[in-house]
Amino acid sequence: MAKDKKMVQAITSMEEDFAQWYTDVVKKAELIDYTSVKGCMVIKPAGYALWENIQKELDRRFKETGVENVYMPMFIPESLLEKEKDHVEGFAPEVAWVTHGGLEPLQERMCVRPTSETLFCDFYANEIQSYRDLPKVYNQWCSVVRWEKTTRPFLRSREFLWQEGHTAHATAEEAQERTEQMLHVYADFVEDVLAIPVVRGRKTDKEKFAGAEATYTIEALMHDGKALQSATSHNFGDGFARAFNIQYTDKENKLSFVHQTSWGLSTRIIGAIIMVHGDDNGLVLPPRIAPTQIMIVPIRQQEEAVANKVEEIKARLAKKFSVKADFSDKSPGWKFAEQEMRGIPARIEIGPKDIEANQCIVVRRDTNEKITVSLDEIESKMEEILETMQKDMFERAKKHRDAHVYDAKDYAQFKQIMDEKSGFVRAMWCGEEECELKIKDEIGATSRCMPFEQEQLTDTCVCCGKKAKALVYWGKAY
Amino acid sequence: MAKDKKMVQAITSMEEDFAQWYTDVVKKAELIDYTSVKGCMVIKPAGYALWENIQKELDRRFKETGVENVYMPMFIPESLLEKEKDHVEGFAPEVAWVTHGGLEPLQERMCVRPTSETLFCDFYANEIQSYRDLPKVYNQWCSVVRWEKTTRPFLRSREFLWQEGHTAHATAEEAQERTEQMLHVYADFVEDVLAIPVVRGRKTDKEKFAGAEATYTIEALMHDGKALQSATSHNFGDGFARAFNIQYTDKENKLSFVHQTSWGLSTRIIGAIIMVHGDDNGLVLPPRIAPTQIMIVPIRQQEEAVANKVEEIKARLAKKFSVKADFSDKSPGWKFAEQEMRGIPARIEIGPKDIEANQCIVVRRDTNEKITVSLDEIESKMEEILETMQKDMFERAKKHRDAHVYDAKDYAQFKQIMDEKSGFVRAMWCGEEECELKIKDEIGATSRCMPFEQEQLTDTCVCCGKKAKALVYWGKAY
Repeated sequence: MAKDKKMVQAITSMEEDFAQWYTDVVKKAELIDYTSVKGCMVIKPAGYALWENIQKELDRRFKETGVENVYMPMFIPESLLEKEKDHVEGFAPEVAWVTHGGLEPLQERMCVRPTSETLFCDFYANEIQSYRDLPKVYNQWCSVVRWEKTTRPFLRSREFLWQEGHTAHATAEEAQERTEQMLHVYADFVEDVLAIPVVRGRKTDKEKFAGAEATYTIEALMHDGKALQSATSHNFGDGFARAFNIQYTDKENKLSFVHQTSWGLSTRIIGAIIMVHGDDNGLVLPPRIAPTQIMIVPIRQQEEAVANKVEEIKARLAKKFSVKADFSDKSPGWKFAEQEMRGIPARIEIGPKDIEANQCIVVRRDTNEKITVSLDEIESKMEEILETMQKDMFERAKKHRDAHVYDAKDYAQFKQIMDEKSGFVRAMWCGEEECELKIKDEIGATSRCMPFEQEQLTDTCVCCGKKAKALVYWGKAY
Repeated sequence: MAKDKKMVQAITSMEEDFAQWYTDVVKKAELIDYTSVKGCMVIKPAGYALWENIQKELDRRFKETGVENVYMPMFIPESLLEKEKDHVEGFAPEVAWVTHGGLEPLQERMCVRPTSETLFCDFYANEIQSYRDLPKVYNQWCSVVRWEKTTRPFLRSREFLWQEGHTAHATAEEAQERTEQMLHVYADFVEDVLAIPVVRGRKTDKEKFAGAEATYTIEALMHDGKALQSATSHNFGDGFARAFNIQYTDKENKLSFVHQTSWGLSTRIIGAIIMVHGDDNGLVLPPRIAPTQIMIVPIRQQEEAVANKVEEIKARLAKKFSVKADFSDKSPGWKFAEQEMRGIPARIEIGPKDIEANQCIVVRRDTNEKITVSLDEIESKMEEILETMQKDMFERAKKHRDAHVYDAKDYAQFKQIMDEKSGFVRAMWCGEEECELKIKDEIGATSRCMPFEQEQLTDTCVCCGKKAKALVYWGKAY
């Protein structure tokens, strides 16, 4: 029993210490574990099953837009990494270097990919000759390495899993279209499937990706009021194409540079699921992404009639849902607590009295609401309950997010909000990096994005008082 | 048109130069391409789609046996790699070493995983305490690195994709059972889905995995008569458990070491698909693994009736099959050659005369057979044709394999067969490594496996004349 006990021991409460609550949840919901490899995690079955579901759903949405999957080498020779100036400056300080192959030193050292723009560019330079070869809309699912100093499960680790899409187009317009299209694919997925509302917008130049002309982002608000960049999509213009000489002949036989994009979403998003939906009993998983959607807990499982009925109901539900039954030798109370910790969306309790009444008790993980359901209608009712729960979880997260968005009309107000509250602050900005730096230093907020839906809160920059150019979402970020 | 021409240019014939034929096919069927990273390949969309199908089917079969997927770090600290003596000796000479993280040298260098036994053991040592924690049946899909000197697409490259299963069990019997179970999962998959007949057996001690008590293998015969080790499954006994101190308390509260297994299949298997089924027109894909099973080629596609009928047939077939229609501006002849190169199992030709007769022409990739099919029956007929093709491909490969298995009763005969023919040689062996080394040196054959189905061809070892202990399949291997 020792091990079960460990799981259902109370975790730190969110209000008391959010960071400790987070660490407790990832460990006790058995999503990850630490390893002997500093800064790297093991993703355990419950965590990896989540990632598999994310992959499956996102990959399907990618393919609907014409994306094809490929696999590039994990190593980048130093000379290749250095070809695009901004890019190498952004990444070189945080890569892992391979210097020896077997017993011999390498002629040229290679880094483990922190991202694969340079590899795709090198490949496209050979692969693309004519307009007939365009567009290329490739993606890969892989792991990447960034040598971070401080790490946190899912949010920041030296190795993480992600997908990175890399495309090449004939025109600037097409590249811009693809950049925005993929941002919306991410946003729709995160909202519809993960039940996390996001702000869609553009990064300021200071915050954009190393080597990009423009970076677009979706930003989500965690329960503690901090922002989490949940996916990004970059338009490179022809910058990389010029550095790597990726040219094509058009229909008039004229040579032009291609226009490129890249876009990615990583296991970091699992951190967002935890921090948006979780509560003091553990993880809460949206039904559409939960590896196990329903757990049936038999009451008095030693009675044959109960065991049989549970198996029957499980078989019926298995046609539509991912369902398990817990026949382990723990008490029902232990089982309830375990499944709450693991975030399983719905629990069904069936005991002798329920069977007599031809009913069962369904308990929603998010609200703890108990619903009596006739066994005759179990399939349709579970569908209804899970759909409602999915919708409610999104609405609840949106309400929480909206309640933590503040407008700041001047600098003092901005400072006061950041000091006293947590969340997004909306304020106007002149477009100068100087103001961003000042706001970061003095107020402790970074620009999260310039939302697609722009408003004119004031005419002047919240910081310097010069003419405002854009509405910006500011916040403290993970 | 330049690019299409390149594709349909005649490739080297198999009889003329099998190695060149292989290289031509992987390139011209657009499965892979070379990169600036020496010894590493790009897996292009057609190649990666094959791997995705392999993953999907194998992963489903794994999960049916209770396998759970996880993800371990890609790095192994040197001290961890060194914990099991045989293992480090086997792998240290061929790993890539990371010595710097960012701008600083690491305190301890780490290798990029060549395989992850040591990481799983390190993890299990913490994770497993009691018999309640057993068995652990974990698997990961990832890439691994082995610093090979000479490389060939799919068959041997410095980085390759694979899955590696790692299990821990309470008893030796359970570990042995799992080792054999997974070998049969591989064998059934390779035979049923990839249409490649295999010999199931055990490796000699000389050929077994570094650190294993016993290695089991499935061996396939390529068209040129060389053998390809297609998947392996290892029983480690408690060797790793002792080196890593992985102990559990049983029901009587007694401490025991766990028993472990590991098993893997890699992108190498794509090389087997090519070399077992391919022909002088290119790739030939078994219908059950082909990313595109049917390609419809319109004849006189500019006629609206043709275009409409092709779209209608495509929509009907899409309910059951993976089907595409080629409306590009190439001639039908070009399209035929392209699809043959890519190995698409069935082609459907539809033109005005066909529509008039309410029929179409189906062409099988493997036999080039042309079959007239009524459009009313197209779904059921395609199912029949593809199923027959799948079965015929296996039978053809098996017939070829069986025709290249020779029995050698003495050393002279063994040498003569290896000199004059190519294929598997079955011969008895005394169990001594000395004889294996002699046979390798003088005859050029290595022991592929001791098949599960043993026979007593002779009473004495084909090499030394001492008492025979086992029937062995010998051959030249990739």
